[in-house]
Amino acid sequence: MEIDTLATRLTQGDRRALSRAITLVESTRSDHRAAAVKLLERVTDPDRQALRIGLSGTPGVGKSTFIEAFGLMLTGQGMRVAVLAVDPSSARSGGSILGDKTRMDRLSRDPAAFIRPSPSQTELGGVARRTREAIALCEAAGFDAVIVETVGVGQSETMVAQMTDLFVLLLAPGGGDELQGVKRGIMEIADLIVINKADGALKAQAQSTRADYAGALRLLRKRPGDPEGFPKALAVSASEGTGLDTAWDEMQALARFRRESGHWDRTRAAQNRHWFEEAVRLGLMRHLATDPQSREAMDRLGRDVADGHLPPGAAAEKMLNLLLSRD
Amino acid sequence: MEIDTLATRLTQGDRRALSRAITLVESTRSDHRAAAVKLLERVTDPDRQALRIGLSGTPGVGKSTFIEAFGLMLTGQGMRVAVLAVDPSSARSGGSILGDKTRMDRLSRDPAAFIRPSPSQTELGGVARRTREAIALCEAAGFDAVIVETVGVGQSETMVAQMTDLFVLLLAPGGGDELQGVKRGIMEIADLIVINKADGALKAQAQSTRADYAGALRLLRKRPGDPEGFPKALAVSASEGTGLDTAWDEMQALARFRRESGHWDRTRAAQNRHWFEEAVRLGLMRHLATDPQSREAMDRLGRDVADGHLPPGAAAEKMLNLLLSRD
Repeated sequence: MEIDTLATRLTQGDRRALSRAITLVESTRSDHRAAAVKLLERVTDPDRQALRIGLSGTPGVGKSTFIEAFGLMLTGQGMRVAVLAVDPSSARSGGSILGDKTRMDRLSRDPAAFIRPSPSQTELGGVARRTREAIALCEAAGFDAVIVETVGVGQSETMVAQMTDLFVLLLAPGGGDELQGVKRGIMEIADLIVINKADGALKAQAQSTRADYAGALRLLRKRPGDPEGFPKALAVSASEGTGLDTAWDEMQALARFRRESGHWDRTRAAQNRHWFEEAVRLGLMRHLATDPQSREAMDRLGRDVADGHLPPGAAAEKMLNLLLSRD
Repeated sequence: MEIDTLATRLTQGDRRALSRAITLVESTRSDHRAAAVKLLERVTDPDRQALRIGLSGTPGVGKSTFIEAFGLMLTGQGMRVAVLAVDPSSARSGGSILGDKTRMDRLSRDPAAFIRPSPSQTELGGVARRTREAIALCEAAGFDAVIVETVGVGQSETMVAQMTDLFVLLLAPGGGDELQGVKRGIMEIADLIVINKADGALKAQAQSTRADYAGALRLLRKRPGDPEGFPKALAVSASEGTGLDTAWDEMQALARFRRESGHWDRTRAAQNRHWFEEAVRLGLMRHLATDPQSREAMDRLGRDVADGHLPPGAAAEKMLNLLLSRD
């Protein structure tokens, strides 16, 4: 399909076009890459903004059940919801292997929803670019909310926090976050801590876990620019659907506050700039590793350095002069 | 002083010239940098190789006493010994503040020795370059052994292991390495574990600590290319001077084995290549941050990215095209 046609269909909200576009940004082939850059440039519209929600939780907390119930509630209110999964360590069952759509059967059949499984395993730098670009495509396709799901045990949470507007940590009742295997540092980036499974035999324990976290969060310093009471702890039951509306109200309240205070725009601007600088850095490293002339020079100078005839610093100067054509 | 004169005096072994040359490579001024690169290129001679010894130990294990006694033993055998201190976290007492020469009074007055305190605090990337280049200058000045001292608690040990021929970990009697605050991972890079203070009341404990480590090391996999029995644990008394000759014998035996097996040359070649690639990487980042044209373009594109009009990936492509003049 022509990039122009793909861009038009995508901005009209066509889910198949979105799917194809994401496949394009996931590709590492250089002609695909060029097309992806062109497509993103074509469809980028600063006035089309979704609420980007980072969601993290270790296996067993009921993440799929939560996303499905939460997503259906939003589509029930007339919204369009996209779910992207990030799992750089993806060799686990579930995820990309069993397929995220199987995990969220009802949501995946909802025409107002779009679910994209995690791409196959690759290095974190690549995962970051693909996820960021997939989010941008979902926004361009007119989705109102984009949920970016991570498993809470890797290094991907900080990365996802750098590309979302708010971050939700999902926990199970009982056991502290450390016992649940949540990586240190995730607590610090969470805007909302949601204790799931507040139903049946676990209801009381979920409530007391919530109270424990609420107490702990009061001790933490409020983040500059955030309203009183955030970060906040809530208890929900994804399977019974209770508390999801409150969770959504809180997310909207926080988002509204941040929009009105200017925090939202500042954060998005800083995020965009961060990813731009990161992309330049990665692009330079890729150029060194793949451009034939650069590789030849790196190899040639590398040999002189390896046998001790040329100091590393002098060789680097020669390489930089070649690369930056400043000789 | 002219670079030519400095180079000549340095290769003649003049300690004042060496001192000036190290000051030059420590400077961040760009004209100094250019002169330093020129000087290093001038004096580099693959046939002048010192034995480069990385030495790590937390404060209190008697590192200065060990280096002084060990260094004096070597100069007593007619060798020339250089001692370089690396301490990127240098706000501690001792080190660059009280001055390493005060810590090693007798060695510093030995005309066959050269002691250089750690440069003032800076980021690890810069510390790596300076230390590596200071080592190269000591070799060019004809020193037979270069001891590179670190404090064993930071990130500098792996870095130093990447620029030395063998690595010695100095420990005190009793308490495991973790109790002594040795950073995880240092055990894995040590070729020789030396338990100091095997004298007086601590003698028996030093011997049993040595036996404990010897046992533990037997369980670890021998490093490919190394002779039987390495890594090895020894007990010494730096203050009484006992065991230092054995430690030196072991270092020489390991160095000889590695030279004869080709491991030495391969390792030096890999180290040089590593630092070359690192220097190119850092040079590119420096260029982005300091070159006026690059900064202007980064700022301009960064603004378009920040306000959401240009995707980070497209902006990065434009920047790379500008930088690498490939448009």
